[in-house]
Amino acid sequence: MNSELTQKLINMENAALDRWNNGDPTGFLEISADDVTYFDSATEQRVDGIKNLTKLYEERRGTVKVDMDEMINPIVNSTSEMAVLSFNLISHIGDKHTKWNCSEVYRLQQYGDWKIVQTHWSLVNTRTN
Amino acid sequence: MNSELTQKLINMENAALDRWNNGDPTGFLEISADDVTYFDSATEQRVDGIKNLTKLYEERRGTVKVDMDEMINPIVNSTSEMAVLSFNLISHIGDKHTKWNCSEVYRLQQYGDWKIVQTHWSLVNTRTN
Repeated sequence: MNSELTQKLINMENAALDRWNNGDPTGFLEISADDVTYFDSATEQRVDGIKNLTKLYEERRGTVKVDMDEMINPIVNSTSEMAVLSFNLISHIGDKHTKWNCSEVYRLQQYGDWKIVQTHWSLVNTRTN
Repeated sequence: MNSELTQKLINMENAALDRWNNGDPTGFLEISADDVTYFDSATEQRVDGIKNLTKLYEERRGTVKVDMDEMINPIVNSTSEMAVLSFNLISHIGDKHTKWNCSEVYRLQQYGDWKIVQTHWSLVNTRTN
């Protein structure tokens, strides 16, 4: 494992989450690549490309207010040009909490920055069958 | 995109799914790396490592019987040593169907084969908040 890259990606993720938790999706949009693909538990089908992801996120702007989140046991599995960060997350809103699974695939871009090419958020314990 | 790699990973995934749909998890175990991490909608926390994933899958051996599945719009985003395959999937059991999101991160191994380092399955339309 590359511990410097691990810390860098965790910091990027946390910075974007801090903005997200206050209703601002721009942090995630800024670190997502043009060809990003996206899943969450509310999307009927995968969302493809930054344009479509921007549209989805703008619909949610101002609607999220998370009081606090806990990123649990983040792990990065990396090669020189691509890395996957995965973690569990507990988000707290008042006295309610929600448990999430998250995987974020980052790719090294042409100018040396890392951007997300695949985001997958899902709710824990939702098996229905 | 590397169309040869894309087809290869889709074929690997479908071959493992065919076995999974008949109660046999070995196909996925054979193409998962030692340091694989795993999420699905029923796991309380991420499952880390092939040993723990084997334990989880062996508990499910023989319990799954999917009549047919449809892999929808698979996309591969790749670099030379890592790639992420993502797709929607509809699995049919009798007249019931279940919709899934799936992302699979594959890494090129030392001997030229590709193995999964991150699996994330989730159910579609399960938002509760």
